[in-house]
Amino acid sequence: MEGAVGQSGVAIDTAGMAKYLGDWSGDHRGGALAVLKPASVAEVQAVVRLCGALGLGIIPQGGNTGLVAGAIDIETRGAVIVSLERLNAIRLVDADNFVLQADAGCILQTVKDAAEAHDCLFPLALGAQGSCQIGGNAASNAGGINVLRYGMARDLILGLEVVLPDGELWSGFSGLRKDNRGYDLKQLFIGSEGTLGIITGVELKLFPKPIRVETAYLGLASFEAAIALFRQARRASADLMSAFEIIGSECIELARLIDADISSPVEAPVHVLIELSASAAVELRTLLVDFLAGAMESGLVTEAVLAESSAQARSFWAIREGLVEGQAKRGYHVRTDLAVRISDVPALVDQARRFVGLDHPGWLPQAYGHAGDGNIHFNVLPPAGLAESEARAQGADITGGLYRIADALGGSISAEHGIGRTRNRAFWAGLAPTHRRLVTALKDALDPQGLMNPGCLLPLTETSS
Amino acid sequence: MEGAVGQSGVAIDTAGMAKYLGDWSGDHRGGALAVLKPASVAEVQAVVRLCGALGLGIIPQGGNTGLVAGAIDIETRGAVIVSLERLNAIRLVDADNFVLQADAGCILQTVKDAAEAHDCLFPLALGAQGSCQIGGNAASNAGGINVLRYGMARDLILGLEVVLPDGELWSGFSGLRKDNRGYDLKQLFIGSEGTLGIITGVELKLFPKPIRVETAYLGLASFEAAIALFRQARRASADLMSAFEIIGSECIELARLIDADISSPVEAPVHVLIELSASAAVELRTLLVDFLAGAMESGLVTEAVLAESSAQARSFWAIREGLVEGQAKRGYHVRTDLAVRISDVPALVDQARRFVGLDHPGWLPQAYGHAGDGNIHFNVLPPAGLAESEARAQGADITGGLYRIADALGGSISAEHGIGRTRNRAFWAGLAPTHRRLVTALKDALDPQGLMNPGCLLPLTETSS
Repeated sequence: MEGAVGQSGVAIDTAGMAKYLGDWSGDHRGGALAVLKPASVAEVQAVVRLCGALGLGIIPQGGNTGLVAGAIDIETRGAVIVSLERLNAIRLVDADNFVLQADAGCILQTVKDAAEAHDCLFPLALGAQGSCQIGGNAASNAGGINVLRYGMARDLILGLEVVLPDGELWSGFSGLRKDNRGYDLKQLFIGSEGTLGIITGVELKLFPKPIRVETAYLGLASFEAAIALFRQARRASADLMSAFEIIGSECIELARLIDADISSPVEAPVHVLIELSASAAVELRTLLVDFLAGAMESGLVTEAVLAESSAQARSFWAIREGLVEGQAKRGYHVRTDLAVRISDVPALVDQARRFVGLDHPGWLPQAYGHAGDGNIHFNVLPPAGLAESEARAQGADITGGLYRIADALGGSISAEHGIGRTRNRAFWAGLAPTHRRLVTALKDALDPQGLMNPGCLLPLTETSS
Repeated sequence: MEGAVGQSGVAIDTAGMAKYLGDWSGDHRGGALAVLKPASVAEVQAVVRLCGALGLGIIPQGGNTGLVAGAIDIETRGAVIVSLERLNAIRLVDADNFVLQADAGCILQTVKDAAEAHDCLFPLALGAQGSCQIGGNAASNAGGINVLRYGMARDLILGLEVVLPDGELWSGFSGLRKDNRGYDLKQLFIGSEGTLGIITGVELKLFPKPIRVETAYLGLASFEAAIALFRQARRASADLMSAFEIIGSECIELARLIDADISSPVEAPVHVLIELSASAAVELRTLLVDFLAGAMESGLVTEAVLAESSAQARSFWAIREGLVEGQAKRGYHVRTDLAVRISDVPALVDQARRFVGLDHPGWLPQAYGHAGDGNIHFNVLPPAGLAESEARAQGADITGGLYRIADALGGSISAEHGIGRTRNRAFWAGLAPTHRRLVTALKDALDPQGLMNPGCLLPLTETSS
């Protein structure tokens, strides 16, 4: 294996491998034969060929910030992790064409900074942006807070470079905004969670950098009111709305675990963080003030605080970001990533709260998320003092119940986090037979040996023939 | 075959079939065993199963407005055309969720009207919108004038319903804005030009309907100036620019063939039609006036006419639309659909004009297109009086030369029209072996009998094993 990547790129001792075996949440620890860290695309190809010859499973790994055990092997523990961390150069920033090319191992924040240095915006934005890698963002089709305006990772990718399961390199960079030559192969790999190849490079769309941003923190009586507000806001903001985040007031305590000084600007049961942004001299403040005045007059919004400075806007975002970190501090908890039709968000939250209240009294529901996309992270904290093993057992039941509620609403159990190994059985069980057959046909066509990220997305037991 | 679709849905006599065998441009006529017109998804499934049992090729056909012989068989003439025209209901307009569901055979204009009736916009806009069908738009990943702001058909599709080559139905409607459950199967079928299945239904993204639109017609000295202007306009318009069309002044004569009263508002060698739109009270006019004042001061724009009424805006668009119709009136001509990096547009036009001038004197180049996407339709009219057979022979050489110029710039021979049967050999020859292998693997995985749209995209002679 040293031959493929050089001595410095191989970790096979327990100590050197440790950081590659646990996920960010601390919920899961995997095992691996070795961790390989190729420093070039050619080394990635060599590694893949070597593993193919030896019949070893390959687990591509980016920043290891995923939440579904997609990049760690918690089942067979007999595969090889291929970390992209040493493949981390920005290859090109072409502001004239609003295009950026980067190695897969580039940290998302590095990509964003490189764009900004050219007065451009790369809009993908998520909590882990300081450590997640752009290749992982592509492989998992990452979402985040700006999906509403700019789309998921899929929508931001112009081209990919991928090492295929047989070690061949497929290069799909073109720099073109429009190219309609047959099957759009990059779409196969985006969101495939490393099961069809290893992404080694990405070509990204850039946008003009916003020069005006307006942020408001609102209080509303209910999730129904928040969704009604979103519908109006979308029109009234001329699609210049870059975020519409919803926060159940019960989440504020979590943010205080991170910073005790955090206080909510409003008292209402449901909070909305709304952000408008523009790259030109659009009177966003007038737009937002006029809109909110109307929404308060109609009673839809009960309290509204407009950020008077970027510091104040940051303090609003600190609540939204703090509550996620605060949850992590609470240790094991039920974490979901549900999507429903936007208009079904109130029903989802209502049914989920009832279910937890009735069937699992003592557990604490937390509802927040990207409401403008119909994406709610409905998480549930165990009662204080409950032993972790018992919490995990009950948590599995709660998760199953929440999935059933989302299913019944025609929703998704994965809005943005992906399937990985924690949701692969629920995913597979929920697929129509025709869908399942198509997924298997694609996997078999591209990875006939089944070496790429075994057990991720496609459950090992149910798909092996 | 009547059993599968009922008597009224079958055409096997020459007269009844005629309108399904020729393309819009009049450039190509195909042949078919029969034309089947199923009136339900179940009938589409029955037809596909019947053809599979008989080993007959199937050519899905929408409005037959394509320009690359993707929906007519100009080679074997032994396949069955399946027209979706009787599958033409709007299934659902859900303005609350900005979602529309329609049968594949719905005319694009019908879809747009249905959206507008709910104060929404379905932004796909192209010359053929009065007769092309939404299923064909999806299968060919249609482009048009609003790609800049809203994307190609691919970007506007939330879900598809597809009859697979074995007659099974895959249903991918969810109404969700965000759904990250593994392989995004709809992406396979979008742009696959009917080679992987028959799209029977589409689920589309709607947008808030613009209430303000500002349009200007500009004169510039060169394509270089136009591209420099685009770069500035993108920032200055806060991404509210819905069109940035470029027209070489030589094209104006063509528009006059349609309406002799058409006159250009400017005299410059290169014209730009710019449109900004917003669904809210954004001061677009101020934005545009201020921007154009700066561009004129710097000398980038030499003439500018702002539309003072929607009638005047329509008169600007009449030039852009008229020149396309005018070309068609001229009969056979070289028609391309090239894409290059936005910054390479001036080089493309310059090299293409030189090539035609030197190698094919007497032929008349026409350069226009969606410059904001790097998409130039560089078309060439034969000299007056040249016999059509001779024109077609020379035209093939000219097309080849223009493809080589685009290739050398790293461009695409199909920005938006697709590959079909007129470009399949050039497409295939231009693919890297790895890319070709992936395309073949997908085709074989989904359509192992090779019955779906034989000869389209994948050339018959080069891919049959």
